[in-house]
Amino acid sequence: MKSFIEYSANTDFPIENLPYGVFTSPKNAQKHIGVAIGDWILDLHVISHLFTGPLLKGKQHVFKDDKLNSFMGLTKAHWVEARATLQSLLDASNTKLKNDSELRQKAFVKQSEATMHLPAEIGDYTDFYSSIHHATNVGIMFRSKENALMPNWKHLPVGYHGRSSSIVIAGTPITRPYGQTLPIEGADPHFGPSRLMDFELEMACFVGGPPTALGERVSARHAEERLFGFVLMNDWSARDIQKWEYVPLGPFTSKNLGTSISPWVVTIEALRPYIVDNYPQDPEPFAYLKHDDKFNFDIKLEVDVKTDKSPVSNTICRSNYRFMYWTVKQQLAQQTVTGCNLRPGDLLGSGTISGDTSDSYGSMLELSWKGTKPIRLQNGEERKFLQDGDTVIIRGYCINEIGVRIGFGKCEGKLLPALPFKE
Amino acid sequence: MKSFIEYSANTDFPIENLPYGVFTSPKNAQKHIGVAIGDWILDLHVISHLFTGPLLKGKQHVFKDDKLNSFMGLTKAHWVEARATLQSLLDASNTKLKNDSELRQKAFVKQSEATMHLPAEIGDYTDFYSSIHHATNVGIMFRSKENALMPNWKHLPVGYHGRSSSIVIAGTPITRPYGQTLPIEGADPHFGPSRLMDFELEMACFVGGPPTALGERVSARHAEERLFGFVLMNDWSARDIQKWEYVPLGPFTSKNLGTSISPWVVTIEALRPYIVDNYPQDPEPFAYLKHDDKFNFDIKLEVDVKTDKSPVSNTICRSNYRFMYWTVKQQLAQQTVTGCNLRPGDLLGSGTISGDTSDSYGSMLELSWKGTKPIRLQNGEERKFLQDGDTVIIRGYCINEIGVRIGFGKCEGKLLPALPFKE
Ligand SMILES: [Ca+2]
Ligand SMILES: [Ca+2]
Ligand SMILES: [Mg+2]
Ligand SMILES: [Mg+2]
Ligand code: NI
Repeated sequence: MKSFIEYSANTDFPIENLPYGVFTSPKNAQKHIGVAIGDWILDLHVISHLFTGPLLKGKQHVFKDDKLNSFMGLTKAHWVEARATLQSLLDASNTKLKNDSELRQKAFVKQSEATMHLPAEIGDYTDFYSSIHHATNVGIMFRSKENALMPNWKHLPVGYHGRSSSIVIAGTPITRPYGQTLPIEGADPHFGPSRLMDFELEMACFVGGPPTALGERVSARHAEERLFGFVLMNDWSARDIQKWEYVPLGPFTSKNLGTSISPWVVTIEALRPYIVDNYPQDPEPFAYLKHDDKFNFDIKLEVDVKTDKSPVSNTICRSNYRFMYWTVKQQLAQQTVTGCNLRPGDLLGSGTISGDTSDSYGSMLELSWKGTKPIRLQNGEERKFLQDGDTVIIRGYCINEIGVRIGFGKCEGKLLPALPFKE
Repeated sequence: MKSFIEYSANTDFPIENLPYGVFTSPKNAQKHIGVAIGDWILDLHVISHLFTGPLLKGKQHVFKDDKLNSFMGLTKAHWVEARATLQSLLDASNTKLKNDSELRQKAFVKQSEATMHLPAEIGDYTDFYSSIHHATNVGIMFRSKENALMPNWKHLPVGYHGRSSSIVIAGTPITRPYGQTLPIEGADPHFGPSRLMDFELEMACFVGGPPTALGERVSARHAEERLFGFVLMNDWSARDIQKWEYVPLGPFTSKNLGTSISPWVVTIEALRPYIVDNYPQDPEPFAYLKHDDKFNFDIKLEVDVKTDKSPVSNTICRSNYRFMYWTVKQQLAQQTVTGCNLRPGDLLGSGTISGDTSDSYGSMLELSWKGTKPIRLQNGEERKFLQDGDTVIIRGYCINEIGVRIGFGKCEGKLLPALPFKE
């Protein structure tokens, strides 16, 4: 496939990708849905009349919306048709858009001139805990090697409901929070700025399809029709606050201080060539969690940290989505097993994705092993946890044997100092 | 105060109450905002032009909305003005609405002919755990008398994020869920219908005021401007699923099978005459959780169970909101302490409200003491947990020394049998 839009071989956004996002530009303050291609955004609001396939002909309005929920709320067949239409319109051999200079002028916006926004209204957000290396590492640190995994962990994808209001678009700064911690076991708790700020390297999947009814289950075998696409996610975490608050109802204020997601939603269709074997599961899961097909993805993930003192980026983690023990189909089945209803635009976080080597761990907690092994940066600085002014940049991309590369862009965020506490 | 609308002395909805809700009627399928008065609903869409006070004159459109979020998103001063306007319009001595028979005809709808809907779009829902007797009971059952309360419990209002999509209006049936449980400790988990279905007697407070920014804290002293009003809530819970899944990230699928709320939002202004002393707190809380005023409420709460075999209602629990250890101001301060942003329409659940006697416990788990003390119903049936066909009805009301009574209506729901599992 070749597009008439030129881009370099290592772009995140070739014609094989075509991720969806929501943007504004200096020319237009209204939010439009767009598709990334090379360094450009194709404005779908402007070309909505070109979706003339049998399914989308009567649904062109979804491309004029200011968020992706309506498009996500159609069916997989609609998404496939939209992708085919876009690939055809952008193809080098198709003159329709290519030779219509007036429309081209209006329809393409430079990514460098655009401002990205949350791609969808996120009704509900769940964060899972599905990387076996991450769960094992945390278990060893806080319990013991023998009891690293909780008894339920291999029977179901453990997860919890997060705070949807606090999900922000990449680039939004995050403020170091105040909160309660217990610096000395058995002593009195302390109130002040968190001292153990961390990132969590995650990916998150947007739910699609029409809303389901309360009481309706979606088993893993039928989950694919409900999965729209992925973004990168940084689940900023205040470890010291988390440790004190989380018993017995789970993480709460340690996690709702801000969760960053990357702006471009890479569809399941685009990811299909990068499907790899599922992680072997033992014991065999219950029927509602079973699916026969491969639904794991070879997505290379990297975390860079940049400090205020040096412009150099330090890659402190190289991981891969394929380390997930539970697939996103299984996560969706677990989400709905007791009848929880879905709405398009719901978000399923993967949980921190750690690999099996110490340079592939997806959090400072694991990389510095609870602060016992400081990470040395190129300019000589050391880090156990994040310091004020640190910028965390998550990147992700797939590449296949013949060199076709699709990427997720980046999920970036800077940690700002705590705001002084006033009563 | 006396209204020209006639109602009996024991109505839940005298002119001193005026709770807000959203309804449709056989005459009008569009959702309108209304206020309950006696057996009637005053349709605020129809009388929006009568809100001519200095603050609401330019905001009349909020009363034409199909949900309360825009009205909730104004300020406390607006809510106070709206209440004064409504009390004046409904007053027996005011002829404006009383003598305008054409407008009266359009503006009043019988509650018995209306269908109630969720009062607001709930962006995020949090459930707290703030009744000391409930937390102690659960602690004794699952740990021991000595370690009943977790070390953090008296230092902060423990809570967790819930699933907003699964909040339903009272009257919606709830289906017994399938899920994983661990019937025998140490053996393999089991998949099937929950055998330990329970209710949780709760109240929930709607957040009001303009949205806050991520990073902004609201301390307890400033919380009142953000609290709009209360509803009754039944947090349906599958105890056996909860017990197996909740470690370490908290309750998840055991709670997202449906949470019922009553339709009428009783405002803080209406509740003011029923304010009582706060529960004594020891240790003294941190400054962000402190407020000097009383903000506890004498709200009498009752739970009735009706079975499929008999039309008789059995009152199995009499509790009171005043048993809350943490005030809702403190809950809001905890919600935002690390900078979590608020949106009008967010919902804060109280947690199960148990009193200090065995007939005031707010769940079957406690009432039957984990199933060891079956509850005897009037027709001879016994209950340890809920059975298929059981209807749970929560009621709440306040009454002061001179006999003025305001009520919350009811929060009712029937438990339906599990749907056979298909893959
Ligand atoms: Ca996480
Ligand atoms: Ca609860
Ligand atoms: Mg977060
Ligand atoms: Mg619930
Ligand atoms: Ni939510």
